[in-house]
Amino acid sequence: MISSVLQNASIVYRSRSDRNLEDNMLRFLSSGEDDIELLYYDVLGTEAHCIMLHEIGILTLSELSQILHALLKLERNTTLIDIASFEDVHESLEAFVIQQTSLQTGGKMHTARSRNDQVVLDMRMKIRDDINNTSAHILDLIRSLLKKAAENQKTIILLYTHLQQAQVGTFSHLLLSYVEALFRDLDRLYLVYNRINQCPLGGGAIGGSSVRIKRNRTAFLLGFRGLVINSIDATSSRDTVCEHMSTLGIIMTTLSRISADLILWSTSEFGYIDISEENSSSSSAMPQKKNPDGLELIRAKAAMTTGLLTGFLGVMKGLPTGYNKDLQEDKEAFLKAFENVRLALSVLRLVTSGARDWLNDRGGCGDIGPSER
Amino acid sequence: MISSVLQNASIVYRSRSDRNLEDNMLRFLSSGEDDIELLYYDVLGTEAHCIMLHEIGILTLSELSQILHALLKLERNTTLIDIASFEDVHESLEAFVIQQTSLQTGGKMHTARSRNDQVVLDMRMKIRDDINNTSAHILDLIRSLLKKAAENQKTIILLYTHLQQAQVGTFSHLLLSYVEALFRDLDRLYLVYNRINQCPLGGGAIGGSSVRIKRNRTAFLLGFRGLVINSIDATSSRDTVCEHMSTLGIIMTTLSRISADLILWSTSEFGYIDISEENSSSSSAMPQKKNPDGLELIRAKAAMTTGLLTGFLGVMKGLPTGYNKDLQEDKEAFLKAFENVRLALSVLRLVTSGARDWLNDRGGCGDIGPSER
Amino acid sequence: MISSVLQNASIVYRSRSDRNLEDNMLRFLSSGEDDIELLYYDVLGTEAHCIMLHEIGILTLSELSQILHALLKLERNTTLIDIASFEDVHESLEAFVIQQTSLQTGGKMHTARSRNDQVVLDMRMKIRDDINNTSAHILDLIRSLLKKAAENQKTIILLYTHLQQAQVGTFSHLLLSYVEALFRDLDRLYLVYNRINQCPLGGGAIGGSSVRIKRNRTAFLLGFRGLVINSIDATSSRDTVCEHMSTLGIIMTTLSRISADLILWSTSEFGYIDISEENSSSSSAMPQKKNPDGLELIRAKAAMTTGLLTGFLGVMKGLPTGYNKDLQEDKEAFLKAFENVRLALSVLRLVTSGARDWLNDRGGCGDIGPSER
Amino acid sequence: MISSVLQNASIVYRSRSDRNLEDNMLRFLSSGEDDIELLYYDVLGTEAHCIMLHEIGILTLSELSQILHALLKLERNTTLIDIASFEDVHESLEAFVIQQTSLQTGGKMHTARSRNDQVVLDMRMKIRDDINNTSAHILDLIRSLLKKAAENQKTIILLYTHLQQAQVGTFSHLLLSYVEALFRDLDRLYLVYNRINQCPLGGGAIGGSSVRIKRNRTAFLLGFRGLVINSIDATSSRDTVCEHMSTLGIIMTTLSRISADLILWSTSEFGYIDISEENSSSSSAMPQKKNPDGLELIRAKAAMTTGLLTGFLGVMKGLPTGYNKDLQEDKEAFLKAFENVRLALSVLRLVTSGARDWLNDRGGCGDIGPSER
Repeated sequence: MISSVLQNASIVYRSRSDRNLEDNMLRFLSSGEDDIELLYYDVLGTEAHCIMLHEIGILTLSELSQILHALLKLERNTTLIDIASFEDVHESLEAFVIQQTSLQTGGKMHTARSRNDQVVLDMRMKIRDDINNTSAHILDLIRSLLKKAAENQKTIILLYTHLQQAQVGTFSHLLLSYVEALFRDLDRLYLVYNRINQCPLGGGAIGGSSVRIKRNRTAFLLGFRGLVINSIDATSSRDTVCEHMSTLGIIMTTLSRISADLILWSTSEFGYIDISEENSSSSSAMPQKKNPDGLELIRAKAAMTTGLLTGFLGVMKGLPTGYNKDLQEDKEAFLKAFENVRLALSVLRLVTSGARDWLNDRGGCGDIGPSER
Repeated sequence: MISSVLQNASIVYRSRSDRNLEDNMLRFLSSGEDDIELLYYDVLGTEAHCIMLHEIGILTLSELSQILHALLKLERNTTLIDIASFEDVHESLEAFVIQQTSLQTGGKMHTARSRNDQVVLDMRMKIRDDINNTSAHILDLIRSLLKKAAENQKTIILLYTHLQQAQVGTFSHLLLSYVEALFRDLDRLYLVYNRINQCPLGGGAIGGSSVRIKRNRTAFLLGFRGLVINSIDATSSRDTVCEHMSTLGIIMTTLSRISADLILWSTSEFGYIDISEENSSSSSAMPQKKNPDGLELIRAKAAMTTGLLTGFLGVMKGLPTGYNKDLQEDKEAFLKAFENVRLALSVLRLVTSGARDWLNDRGGCGDIGPSER
Repeated sequence: MISSVLQNASIVYRSRSDRNLEDNMLRFLSSGEDDIELLYYDVLGTEAHCIMLHEIGILTLSELSQILHALLKLERNTTLIDIASFEDVHESLEAFVIQQTSLQTGGKMHTARSRNDQVVLDMRMKIRDDINNTSAHILDLIRSLLKKAAENQKTIILLYTHLQQAQVGTFSHLLLSYVEALFRDLDRLYLVYNRINQCPLGGGAIGGSSVRIKRNRTAFLLGFRGLVINSIDATSSRDTVCEHMSTLGIIMTTLSRISADLILWSTSEFGYIDISEENSSSSSAMPQKKNPDGLELIRAKAAMTTGLLTGFLGVMKGLPTGYNKDLQEDKEAFLKAFENVRLALSVLRLVTSGARDWLNDRGGCGDIGPSER
Repeated sequence: MISSVLQNASIVYRSRSDRNLEDNMLRFLSSGEDDIELLYYDVLGTEAHCIMLHEIGILTLSELSQILHALLKLERNTTLIDIASFEDVHESLEAFVIQQTSLQTGGKMHTARSRNDQVVLDMRMKIRDDINNTSAHILDLIRSLLKKAAENQKTIILLYTHLQQAQVGTFSHLLLSYVEALFRDLDRLYLVYNRINQCPLGGGAIGGSSVRIKRNRTAFLLGFRGLVINSIDATSSRDTVCEHMSTLGIIMTTLSRISADLILWSTSEFGYIDISEENSSSSSAMPQKKNPDGLELIRAKAAMTTGLLTGFLGVMKGLPTGYNKDLQEDKEAFLKAFENVRLALSVLRLVTSGARDWLNDRGGCGDIGPSER
């Protein structure tokens, strides 16, 4: 952001909004809170970009060294800067580096880069990590369900359609149906990972850069599989974010259905499972109750996650090509959706592994002949 | 929450979840952050409830005095308690009062009350205030638009259908069309106010209370117009929250359309208005640009507000009668939706009052004969 | 649509799209199927408009008489015209009248009117009727629930929170909680009725008409309470449609919750009610089953109705002022939402009135002391 | 559906609903209209199932021959049966075959099959075809865009961010950014195809069948890549339908953004393109106007498609495991979403190929130096 100003030898590097923007406006425009989660990735991306800038002769070794020194401080401790007092993470990072080095040095850092490609970079790196973490959580839940399935291969239960008793089956058969759905969720995440794992750096504001940067080099340094080739596409499109959020919404829907089953089974009337005290809450007036609060929240947060997806698809609908500030809303959407999924997976694993086994005396009886496949 | 435990002479008043709930579970269950905004109303509601409890002989004058003393401290400074370390606002408030008075005294405070009616009370009081504040903001915007309309009664402009030039008209005519929509938005808020302005206290957990409380008395003390008569309805229904959120969503849709007009008119190609520097941002690479960031965000946040409405309607769909933890999600939904509306109204007023008047030399010409009404 | 062409003495009155528009394009553009439901209102609106045109001297008595003669034929039998072969209902109506009268006469019919105010008129008249019909259906359901409540004032049941048994209560208490919610739904419809019941005729394409029409006269003839005063507002805004659809969405949410209760109670495990054979379906493999299909569909259609609301709010978000073809989607949205509500109310009344009374031997026992109000 | 009745020697093969279900209820329950599109696949699926039933000895060669004879009639002409008078397509197909053969023969057709796995089969086969057709349409649009890009490699245009002029670029660069997005849409469809292309037959009502059917044989006959192994999963899950609808929603969002660009460029003020008369509509009052109706509808239908996705995710949220009638709503959702996409792709191709080339005299000038990749 500063490079253009540098050429005008001005000391004020973000003039307009800083000076005059009224308070509400700043609060509205600022993506500060969400940006805290992206700062780490902004640091990494800036490191890679500066290394490349040095390699093509824009930064001297000394300048690169000073910048990296400052950035490494930030990488170790992202609380060194106060995002809230800046419009966004990129600006606050730049101010920090300039303060740690010099306007001359730090100001060069953004040569051949724009906030428009930078923010997409941060988002893509964050989603990569989110997908990896979510996948690990799904695998944990699958393991927990498989363990219970292995223990319940001969536990006869009733299967329901329309919530009416329909056929007898085994508890393991039911648990494995959950596992099938979770494996599909895992597979979807994997596919989104491949699509998000492409480097947008070099897109610039929209039309790329006139500097002869090495896009493949920064992509390599940041662990990307390839490039988002078209600069307009790189800065303007968010369809893969939509796909990611849709995947998260589908996972939450899967989890909400498992939760609904468990809530029903833990009623006195069904009485099939007993949620452990650790994973339920009592009532103030009725301390003997075991309310399945966590499961109910998973069910509710599934709906709210769908709302985030709906909201963000609504943001994108009919938006003209090119970066528009509307795109800033993607952060709140995907960060919150990921938080919902992460916690829901974790809570569901706790509840399922903590629940007492299927209470056999309430279950069905008889035998079920599996069909040949 | 403590009253029941008191009778068992136990010193631990929230045993299960406090001791054992694992960390993720607590974080998931906790509505802490959202609750901070509700604490003030929880204090007021508790004051009214305790006064009534004294009047029907449950609390002695001395007990009431001690409790009110503690509550007034909190009313003046809601940061005295650390909500984050409790599951919800009600629990943390109770712990504070008990610590300031005694277990014996503070514990009586929740006689004939449950978190289920208490949380609905807080929500209804908060929404009352939100509606009042939103209405004031809408009126501010209307005033700003009327002022501009008065100045532009003879400013001839082009009117568009399908974004194609269709007829000539006056700028005031167009501005007044915005005002019409905003007055309807105001009217809708007023109607929701009347419906939300009914006191749910006395609903208890679901079936009311066996104590002969005076529901009309607490309703009067808290400024409510009447009661939510049926205790199941009082604790279980959230249709008026849905209506409130729908109203907020419609307001945002109105504002997003005004914003879209302004964004279009401020392009170089249309060139009808000039957004002041204070209310736009420049680009890092192109400092001469005046990007209508605030207006773009209004447009985006309209979509996200619809997403919150969608999400919460999804939470409610098919939810069994009675309090379910799912209902906790209403807080995040309506608090965030209100925040969006409040800031959008404020930003739009700044932009419209700051924008340079319609640039006449770009407008149309000729005369328009209004039809008789 | 024809008037402008008349002046050019052309015989082809809808040249461009009719001749050249490719087939897919026409199918996409056509709102034919939805328009069938609006044709009746288009006829009524045209009758009133023509009477007014006669009164201000545009149509001679003979011309009016010919036009009304043709329109009355259509009013009695809307299948006389084939909407599918025209782009919209207005065009097909005009073609019919011209064929029944003459190009000279029928062509005058649209003087001082545009499809843009006409389509809003039809929509407002249809929604008025929809609200009246929905209200009658809600009252039928309320009556049915009140009857059952009167019979069950002493039927003791269990009340649930978190689907866990919480307190005992009476079945009538529970049924009356539904009635409270339905009365709020009714009240909301009534308020939307007042807002929709304003006449947009005279709005023209966007800027009104240069003909000195009598707007109050047509409004009176069509039974409206007043005018949508601003012509831009009249043709461009759809916020009241959004409000209507939101009201329908909230009604469906209410009905989905009642349905969810009934589905649960009719399980073997809860066993509280017995849905009559007429109102359930059996299974092909298990003829003894009584699947609560109708209730399940109410639950599902509640979600789909929310989707229609979401969709239409998405259509409106960020749409520039003035008629845009996007607005055509309101028809599908509100027609389908109304259909869902109408059938759901009817099905729920059938099921609740047909269900065998609460099966007392499965219910709770004891007494419940109601609190003083 | 008939097999169970056969054993009871009854002639009435769908007793309960046919006799007694009240009219509204039947209309509500019936999925008739949507089913018409599935009938063809139901015929194919039944043919494969019967061939397998013969191979494992359930049907004699003569019985198989009679059944196939009837089914082939239907395959050639699906209008031979009147779906509207039956609850669903499966029932009407069965009735037709029984009428063409005998109760004895036709009744055996559903041995080891249930409507619950059958309806999923039809849905999967229909979506397979939908994906193929959509992919072809996307490729057509891509080809059309590539052709225009090839012609415009040197056409200099302005690139916008925040709708403000930002940089110069080439028209081909912009068109290729659309192509990138469309290729990702294509890739997503391909991945959904692989997931939907698994055979659910054999799932039965929920617990599979006690008959030793050959699942791999029917899967092979119907061209599936594999099996949905778990019977509960096969009949109960719809996550891949959600994924399909999300993919359609993302495609529509892509198309809505291209449409928004074109609408803006075809304004008098931007004046970059000229939509051909064939692909626009005039106004009744202003015949010189060229309204981009088709593009506006694409924009609107993008929002409605998101609404369908939202609605269907809402249907699934918290639904208990096992077939519930709620799942019937998937048909309306995915059929309508596909229809939107199909027509939007077709309309957009017509408009882009018909539009006059970028009007150079209105565009920018100068040169743009692309960065090294």
